[in-house]
Amino acid sequence: MTSAASGAAQTLDVAVFGAGRIGRIHAGNLARQPGVRLKYVVDVNREAAAALAAQHGAQVVDVDAAFGDASIGATVICSSTDTHAELILKSAAAGKPIFCEKPVDLTIERARACAEAVQRAGVVAMIGFQRRYDPTFAALKTRLDAGEIGTPEMLIVTSRDPGAPPVEYIKHSGGIFKDMLIHDFDIFRWILGDEASSVHATGSCLSDPAIADAGDIDSTAVTIRTKRGRLCQINTARRAAYGYDQRFEVLGSEGMLQAGNMKPTEVVAWSKTAVAQDVPEAFFLERYRAAYASEMAHFHEAVTQGVPVRTSVADGLKALELAEAASLSWREGRVVTLGD
Amino acid sequence: MTSAASGAAQTLDVAVFGAGRIGRIHAGNLARQPGVRLKYVVDVNREAAAALAAQHGAQVVDVDAAFGDASIGATVICSSTDTHAELILKSAAAGKPIFCEKPVDLTIERARACAEAVQRAGVVAMIGFQRRYDPTFAALKTRLDAGEIGTPEMLIVTSRDPGAPPVEYIKHSGGIFKDMLIHDFDIFRWILGDEASSVHATGSCLSDPAIADAGDIDSTAVTIRTKRGRLCQINTARRAAYGYDQRFEVLGSEGMLQAGNMKPTEVVAWSKTAVAQDVPEAFFLERYRAAYASEMAHFHEAVTQGVPVRTSVADGLKALELAEAASLSWREGRVVTLGD
Amino acid sequence: MTSAASGAAQTLDVAVFGAGRIGRIHAGNLARQPGVRLKYVVDVNREAAAALAAQHGAQVVDVDAAFGDASIGATVICSSTDTHAELILKSAAAGKPIFCEKPVDLTIERARACAEAVQRAGVVAMIGFQRRYDPTFAALKTRLDAGEIGTPEMLIVTSRDPGAPPVEYIKHSGGIFKDMLIHDFDIFRWILGDEASSVHATGSCLSDPAIADAGDIDSTAVTIRTKRGRLCQINTARRAAYGYDQRFEVLGSEGMLQAGNMKPTEVVAWSKTAVAQDVPEAFFLERYRAAYASEMAHFHEAVTQGVPVRTSVADGLKALELAEAASLSWREGRVVTLGD
Amino acid sequence: MTSAASGAAQTLDVAVFGAGRIGRIHAGNLARQPGVRLKYVVDVNREAAAALAAQHGAQVVDVDAAFGDASIGATVICSSTDTHAELILKSAAAGKPIFCEKPVDLTIERARACAEAVQRAGVVAMIGFQRRYDPTFAALKTRLDAGEIGTPEMLIVTSRDPGAPPVEYIKHSGGIFKDMLIHDFDIFRWILGDEASSVHATGSCLSDPAIADAGDIDSTAVTIRTKRGRLCQINTARRAAYGYDQRFEVLGSEGMLQAGNMKPTEVVAWSKTAVAQDVPEAFFLERYRAAYASEMAHFHEAVTQGVPVRTSVADGLKALELAEAASLSWREGRVVTLGD
Repeated sequence: MTSAASGAAQTLDVAVFGAGRIGRIHAGNLARQPGVRLKYVVDVNREAAAALAAQHGAQVVDVDAAFGDASIGATVICSSTDTHAELILKSAAAGKPIFCEKPVDLTIERARACAEAVQRAGVVAMIGFQRRYDPTFAALKTRLDAGEIGTPEMLIVTSRDPGAPPVEYIKHSGGIFKDMLIHDFDIFRWILGDEASSVHATGSCLSDPAIADAGDIDSTAVTIRTKRGRLCQINTARRAAYGYDQRFEVLGSEGMLQAGNMKPTEVVAWSKTAVAQDVPEAFFLERYRAAYASEMAHFHEAVTQGVPVRTSVADGLKALELAEAASLSWREGRVVTLGD
Repeated sequence: MTSAASGAAQTLDVAVFGAGRIGRIHAGNLARQPGVRLKYVVDVNREAAAALAAQHGAQVVDVDAAFGDASIGATVICSSTDTHAELILKSAAAGKPIFCEKPVDLTIERARACAEAVQRAGVVAMIGFQRRYDPTFAALKTRLDAGEIGTPEMLIVTSRDPGAPPVEYIKHSGGIFKDMLIHDFDIFRWILGDEASSVHATGSCLSDPAIADAGDIDSTAVTIRTKRGRLCQINTARRAAYGYDQRFEVLGSEGMLQAGNMKPTEVVAWSKTAVAQDVPEAFFLERYRAAYASEMAHFHEAVTQGVPVRTSVADGLKALELAEAASLSWREGRVVTLGD
Repeated sequence: MTSAASGAAQTLDVAVFGAGRIGRIHAGNLARQPGVRLKYVVDVNREAAAALAAQHGAQVVDVDAAFGDASIGATVICSSTDTHAELILKSAAAGKPIFCEKPVDLTIERARACAEAVQRAGVVAMIGFQRRYDPTFAALKTRLDAGEIGTPEMLIVTSRDPGAPPVEYIKHSGGIFKDMLIHDFDIFRWILGDEASSVHATGSCLSDPAIADAGDIDSTAVTIRTKRGRLCQINTARRAAYGYDQRFEVLGSEGMLQAGNMKPTEVVAWSKTAVAQDVPEAFFLERYRAAYASEMAHFHEAVTQGVPVRTSVADGLKALELAEAASLSWREGRVVTLGD
Repeated sequence: MTSAASGAAQTLDVAVFGAGRIGRIHAGNLARQPGVRLKYVVDVNREAAAALAAQHGAQVVDVDAAFGDASIGATVICSSTDTHAELILKSAAAGKPIFCEKPVDLTIERARACAEAVQRAGVVAMIGFQRRYDPTFAALKTRLDAGEIGTPEMLIVTSRDPGAPPVEYIKHSGGIFKDMLIHDFDIFRWILGDEASSVHATGSCLSDPAIADAGDIDSTAVTIRTKRGRLCQINTARRAAYGYDQRFEVLGSEGMLQAGNMKPTEVVAWSKTAVAQDVPEAFFLERYRAAYASEMAHFHEAVTQGVPVRTSVADGLKALELAEAASLSWREGRVVTLGD
């Protein structure tokens, strides 16, 4: 049913759901893979859909038409979060390989239903945790797995946005833990190779009172203790004046590995007052440009060559469970214990 | 009674209690101040006392003799922790300026008694939180206070020792929170300029099972939320394979300030596999060499010129209260709320 | 005659001469520009030509056929150095925009003839000094021109290859000054914005005696004094064990700007012995990947929008004159003065 | 005659000539050595002499009185350059160990006479090339000698002052090559472990026309080729807006070692526009503080324990010969060949 079964020579026809910023990036990266043809673009915003379709020689259709075409070999889901679960379920039912942006869903129940559906269907199903494909993060992970610093014991994650999104966005985001830290929870599981035993989260609204009015916070401090006793601290802020800050460090029994920010250039300026380098890449589109490309290449190889996906729907579910636990910890001011 | 009252021309005679490693450093740094004479060294280890006394032309005496000499203008307390409180109380009673190594005491009750005694006596009384005198940390604090990054909002402290001390030491240390994190709690109060509202601490014993057998841990993750909603995360480990790691960073509303490690040299080696710099200074004696010198110069100016001490016994008490709260949080697996 | 005249809607048909490593890169980057079609590939190596043509849906033809097609709107010359001049002259005669890899030619006479021919013909003619298009170097130049460090006074260029090419290559390379330093001479002119008044060059053969046997050297130290008294030092080596090293720094009256190497990742590893970062990008294809893309985008805008080329054949000639002067200085062991 | 012969128990009485800035530093560092007593201070400026003497409990005497006292075990010569040779000769004649600030003299003839005199007398005689004692530079040299980067092949020295001295100073300085680059020439010989075969120097006056009027330059670019074909480039400027810049790098057959600047603190500030570190230590007194201390400790061990001096009068002479050759090269605009 998938084009993986039909040989490399055959074209992989793809339907993209969502023609927004991230949809355009995924579409472009996927279209660059050999043998891939962007066939359909689906978006309630017909103008955006038409623009993306035109760029790739694709057609604008609706959901039913897209799923009605048996030649579609993969779906790329970049539409609004509330549509993810339904599209995943439809794709799974149709036996089509799935790439879906994070989060799977804002509720654990529906996310779990998706994880079960794709497993039952046996389709390739990949969640867009692009950070795992970042060259720096991936190189660190490879070196960690090779034993360069012995056993990992402690992980410190720093994750800060250059500025808060509009409050309207925040209201429908599911809260900072599901919207922003979902990535950090995935990093935690991936890097420490362990599951959470307990979670403590606290936070504040420090940048914009409107965020507090919307029932959310903009700064968090999360601590996770794993089943094996490893420790993880995550600090996040919606606003870092100096830009997008994406770092983590792993302390191991024999050393430490740090993943630093990327800079636009390697210029260093020596003035009367300072020796100055560039601030980090502006935001996720710049910072993770290479990661997004690598992520789609991986989806392509998963679909066409049967390589197991590195970021599964089950990973998406696990991260969501952590976000839920952190949210509960913050709201109730207590440590939350996770079951087996 | 203090030599501050008697004019700069007069010699300041000092009694040092404790001739161990840190005692020798403080004695040397104090003796380098103009007009200071090391008169007495007191230590139950007579050999150590004699060696230090010989180096400075001082006499070895016992505690009573030292306090019996009215000409002693200051006491420097570097003896074992269980003697701190008694010596502070004696010094306060005798109206002598006090420098005392951290911690004031392992119990809050006795530490509070010391704080009250020195306040009643009105003597100069300084606690050895040497990190505040470190050139890098002090410069950061000055720039923070000058508003360089706006309002401080989040503090991340990394504090790792190169290796765990002998288990015998650990057994009498009061536990990792009072022994090791006491410094980090002081950094927290100093940098954020705020007091803790709640504390959460967790930890593990990852390096040496003997530490767990002694009822302690070697790795901790602490989170503090302040009364004004600021956040602090502290991560500590008794063992970092690459050496002594002493960093912190403050995120403010308009930027970030980081305090990095110091290196023995500025050599960079480019080989086939890496571009390599020195590991950090080996341990606290090297890392805080300048801080120790600056600390004693400050004690000297406090004694002779009436400059208010920057690290008071009250600060020592506050840090101890945080250590106690963290310890409770860890033992009971819950968030601890601090009163006003 | 050029497609610039015919409006943006028209396709720009391109002929590429040379299907080697750099030809393939330029072809790929040019093909990515909107409206560009790779029509012909010319190479004496028919296999290489066929492979590149197949990738882009182009045809393999010979030189005459390529020039015989009036619809060709631009030529991209990446063939061996000894063919550059002839192809430039043919393109100029045919009124076709030219992109030509460095060097224009190994002789000043023929390079000058090319410069004159393209000027007479009034065609767009660009030389492949890709370093000017490197994001780091270009950002530095922009900041320099904006006056960030006042007047530039001194330039230090470090330019080292990871390893020497085969001696067979060296024999036909024109020598290290024309083959390798040609880029550094262009950097010198571009950054200091001044022309050489005198040149001194010395060098040695330190890595491989076969290079000396071929009459060449592998390590050079060049000093240029400009007409305005500015100073430039260039150091080059054919072999740097740690990889491709491409740095320069400009000292100005009010500060300094440095351009550093690029690293594959931002991982930092802290071990018992070192704090280690990645070695630089391996070689020019990796280091200047972004530069090559930007270079072709610039050629495209020069051809289609009439933007003046930033690296002209005249620049190529000037760099060659410096290479010739340096070579003479080295051979005769004396300072060479350049005329007006 | 020297105190080395008389055992560690005996006091080493020292006479210091010159009570200026550097004299005070050397006196302080030497007095810190065990068993050293500063007995005499000699300076035509009686006020400066009296101040330094008072600080160390020494006496102010004239040259003859100092040399007339047989108990003087070492002389420290920090007086003006034109007095160095005479004092060295007197010390040698009196069999007294000598420490003398660079340069030995401004003329090769007199410097050679000094080298010969101290050799004949067999006295310890050390020249103040303090850079060799800098922790960073010394560590680099040790690693180089241990073979970490194979055979050294190329040396790049950057040596820039924060600002030009008064023109009055420059007039009597012997010119930039003897006054400023003398240190860099010593670094060259020390690091490459080879002697110059040819020297080329050029330069300009770019910061202050008064320097040109005084017949000197403020910016230089020097190239040295060694007898074994190794290459060295030195760039110097009297004025770097960002402070005192003291770096060098050695390219070896198997890697590179760089010696970087030292910073006052390890604070890093992340703002909207830059990630900024401290500018380098302000000037030589700060940058080489540790080097000066280590240098005097070495002189002390040379005098008292017979350890061979690491920076001899012969080294001073060799550096001066290079300065002379560079000066000639600059004035005559030609390469200068050095004999054997």
